[in-house]
Formats: sequence, C-alpha cells, structure tokens
Amino acid sequence: MAEKLYEGKAKILYTTSDPAILLAEFKDDATAFNAQKKGSIAHKGRVNATVSAKLFTLLERSGVPTHFIEQAGENLLRLRRLQMIPLEVVVRNIVAGSLAKRTGLETGTVLGEALIEFYYKSDDLGDPLLNDDHILKVLTLVDAIQLAQLRHSALKVNDILGAFYLRCGIRLVDFKLEYGYDNAGQLQLGDELSPDNCRLWTLDEDRVLDKDRFRFDLGDVDAAYQEVLERVGATSF
Amino acid sequence: MAEKLYEGKAKILYTTSDPAILLAEFKDDATAFNAQKKGSIAHKGRVNATVSAKLFTLLERSGVPTHFIEQAGENLLRLRRLQMIPLEVVVRNIVAGSLAKRTGLETGTVLGEALIEFYYKSDDLGDPLLNDDHILKVLTLVDAIQLAQLRHSALKVNDILGAFYLRCGIRLVDFKLEYGYDNAGQLQLGDELSPDNCRLWTLDEDRVLDKDRFRFDLGDVDAAYQEVLERVGATSF
Ligand SMILES: Nc1ncnc2c1ncn2[C@@H]1O[C@H](COP(=O)(O)OP(=O)(O)O)[C@@H](O)[C@H]1O
Ligand SMILES: Nc1ncnc2c1ncn2[C@@H]1O[C@H](COP(=O)(O)OP(=O)(O)O)[C@@H](O)[C@H]1O
Ligand SMILES: [Mg+2]
Ligand SMILES: [Mg+2]
Repeated sequence: MAEKLYEGKAKILYTTSDPAILLAEFKDDATAFNAQKKGSIAHKGRVNATVSAKLFTLLERSGVPTHFIEQAGENLLRLRRLQMIPLEVVVRNIVAGSLAKRTGLETGTVLGEALIEFYYKSDDLGDPLLNDDHILKVLTLVDAIQLAQLRHSALKVNDILGAFYLRCGIRLVDFKLEYGYDNAGQLQLGDELSPDNCRLWTLDEDRVLDKDRFRFDLGDVDAAYQEVLERVGATSF
Repeated sequence: MAEKLYEGKAKILYTTSDPAILLAEFKDDATAFNAQKKGSIAHKGRVNATVSAKLFTLLERSGVPTHFIEQAGENLLRLRRLQMIPLEVVVRNIVAGSLAKRTGLETGTVLGEALIEFYYKSDDLGDPLLNDDHILKVLTLVDAIQLAQLRHSALKVNDILGAFYLRCGIRLVDFKLEYGYDNAGQLQLGDELSPDNCRLWTLDEDRVLDKDRFRFDLGDVDAAYQEVLERVGATSF
C-alpha cells in the first residue's frame, strides 16, 4: 500500500491509505554544502524524529499549527501531507554561518532582535537568498499576506523553541523552517525540527551540538546529536 | 591643491579648495566579477562622464536630487561630496545576470513590475545581497524611513531613465545606483549613470550596449560605449 513518494537528503516520504497522510522516515544520511559533502551520523534518524516529535507537540500546544500527527516508530513520523511552499524560512538570534560571511560580523554576535531570511528551496539553484520583491513580484511564491503570516509564525516558533531550549541549557542560535498548506488551505509548519536544521550551542561553554560538527569535522558528531536528544527528552513543558 | 581622496575601480576622486566639492575623474579601466577580470575600454572615461552628466541633468530637472554640479572636462565631473551609504541599489525591469541565476528565470523575461535589490557595497565580502532585516536590524546601514526613501527614489529614477532610454531606442534592462547624504543631511543620488552600471539593449534587436560586452567577451566593446554616447547625445529632453 505504502509507496515511496519522495526521497530527499534526510527523509523518505511514504504515502499511506489516507491520501492526506504521509509517513516520514528519518535517515541517518547526512549531507552538507548542497550535498557536496556526504556522510552518515549514527542514530541521526531516531534523534531527529524524536526531537522533532517533541518540539512539534510543544508548538501545537502553544497554538502553532503543524503537520505533526504522531511518532509512529523510532525514526518514523505520521504527518499531514502539505503542499509545500518552496521557501526556507531562517530565523537567527546570534550571528553564525552564512550571516557572518554576508555581513562581516563576528560569529557569536548576539542580535538585538531576531532576524528572518527567506531562501529559495532549490538544490539546482543552490538555495539562494531572496528578498521580498523576488518572492512577491518575480517568483510570486506567496502573496504579501502569506509572507507576513510566515514571518509572524516563524518569530512565534523562535520564542517558543528559544525558551524551551534555554531550559535544556542550550542557546538556539538559528534554525530553518519549511511551511506548507493543508487540504483546507491552512498554513502549517512542516518538515523537521532537529539538530540538522538548527544551530544549538550549550549555554555554559558554547559547545556546538548541531550539524556544524559534521559540516566542519569537529568530531563527536553522534554524541552531540545524542546529547540533544537527552537534553530535550529530559526537559518537560 | 587638489589631492587624490580615493581611487576606485572606475574613478579617481580629488578634493578641491571647497571641502564640500569633489572632482571625479572617470578612467578607461574596466573590471568585472569583483575585479577578477581586468582590462580597459577605449574612451570609456569620456563616455561615462558625458552620459552621466546628461542623465544627472535630466534627473535634477525631474526633481531627483543628485550630487552633480557640472562636467568639468572630457572625463571629469564636479560633484558635491557625499557621505555615501554602503548600499548598491539595483533596479530591474527585465531578467538578466544574477537575477536569472538566482531565480532560474530566463534572461529576457520582462518583469510585470520593477524590482529592487540592495547589495552591501563591500569588495571584501563580494557585494552580497541583503534583505531589509540585514539592512535595518543587523547592519543598521539606514533606518526604515531612509530605506523607503531609497526605494521611492530608485523607482522614480527608473521611470525617468527608462522613458528617456526608450527615446534613444534602448531598453533599460537594469541598473545600479549609489546614494549618499550631503552636508545638510539631504539624500542625493551619487556615483555614476553609465553603461558600466546599466544593462542597455537596443529596442530593435536586443543588441547589448553595456559592460556585459566586456564581461562576456562579446566584442566591439568600445563601439558599444560609443554608440550609447551618440544615442544619448542625440536625444533631447
Ligand atoms: N508534511 C509534508 N508534506 C509534504 N512534503 C513535506 C512535508 N514535510 C516536509 N516535506 C518535504 O519533504 C521533503 C523531504 O525532506 P528532506 O529529506 O529534508 O528533503 P530535501 O533534501 O529536499 O530537503 C522535503 O522536500 C520537504 O519539503
Ligand atoms: N558624490 C560623492 N561623494 C563621495 N564619494 C562618492 C560620490 N560619488 C561616488 N562616490 C564614491 O566614489 C568611489 C569611487 O568610484 P568607483 O571608482 O566606482 O569606486 P568603486 O570601485 O569603489 O565602485 C565609490 O566608492 C563611490 O561610492
Ligand atoms: Mg530537508
Ligand atoms: Mg563603482
């Protein structure tokens, strides 16, 4: 019955008997720099599925609509199928990664206010940064109201996840979200919420617990993912 | 008396006896791709100074404040000294160059509405694209009102120059502006308005008359610049 719908870099999506519902299998495969670097992180699928499940649950309880239904296995989430918007919505609290390169500001600089960036989700084009004119006038990916809704939701997600991660002893440096529309046309948060898509630094000593360990060969990659799972698992909401 | 204040890629700025006034000498030197490609275009300095002088005059008469005072020689403009804003303000009417790469849209696609992009003027950083959050919240290069003024002015410049170039038999595909503040804190259009900073295609057969001939080795570079000078010179306003 279940057919493979799409295999991405981090997940495989399967159809189910209900056309509105998908199963997402989280893989241990890891890629970086638009898949130029490839590898694997032990138990990543399990960590990312479990951390995502918990954070989606937190967001739902806080009034953010998400695609999450339930965790259906170690590395398996049951999700509402969405019509994805081809945008990566990035929220940043601290300068790191491409923002340091773009602005010349030092990594670790705390931003006075959270910053939002939109990237065009296109492997072929290398996920380029877009401005509002590109989104609204040139590519017409969403309209102005939808764009404002994306910004509003992403900032709300930032508040909720940032506060939760603080209670895990972790600074939420930045993260990437993907949104879509369900059958009823409602905007929902999709994709995953995991150390693959966030920068997470420990509060006490700025120890990196996210995919940057893989990107920049910092070592102890599996252990870092495991630590995120443990800290998130041990923190109630 | 006159001292060299700054030598850029295309111009040399000299101080004058009046600290509020500069002389800009337009060079024949040509660079592209962040100065990775270097060369020279015969009579470019004269063409760019003369075309800029005419277009600044047109803009002034249409109510756009500019730094232009007068043409003081073949390749020499007398200018009000500005405190430059480190932004490149790009206006686009037709898809070309980096917009084609960024969006996957075909070169030559006519945009329904003019598009504005802001780039951080920084050779070291490679002139990266910025969004409004980068400009306002992260780098605080201008405030929200100033940013709106830049957009408003750039669109007005587009209307005026686009209509004029049409009368020259030329399509104004896109162009780059730089703005600054004078002693009184007034926003003025600075820098130059030349085939170095615009894409110009002939109306009849889309013949390229701008720096893309140099960038992509299309040949007849000097003649193209000369043709822009002749067409602009022959068209009254
Ligand atoms: N609820 C959903 N419905 C449909 N597609 C989804 C949903 N959530 C995420 N996706 C999409 O699933 C795909 C697979 O995820 P991933 O392996 O991360 O792919 P990619 O390599 O394209 O980022 C992505 O294109 C993502 O946008
Ligand atoms: N009216 C002005 N007052 C002060 N600086 C100006 C004015 N107009 C242009 N400039 C600056 O003059 C410099 C020299 O021009 P150019 O040779 O094109 O330099 P660059 O290689 O930095 O683009 C640029 O940095 C430009 O911003
Ligand atoms: Mg993905
Ligand atoms: Mg210049």
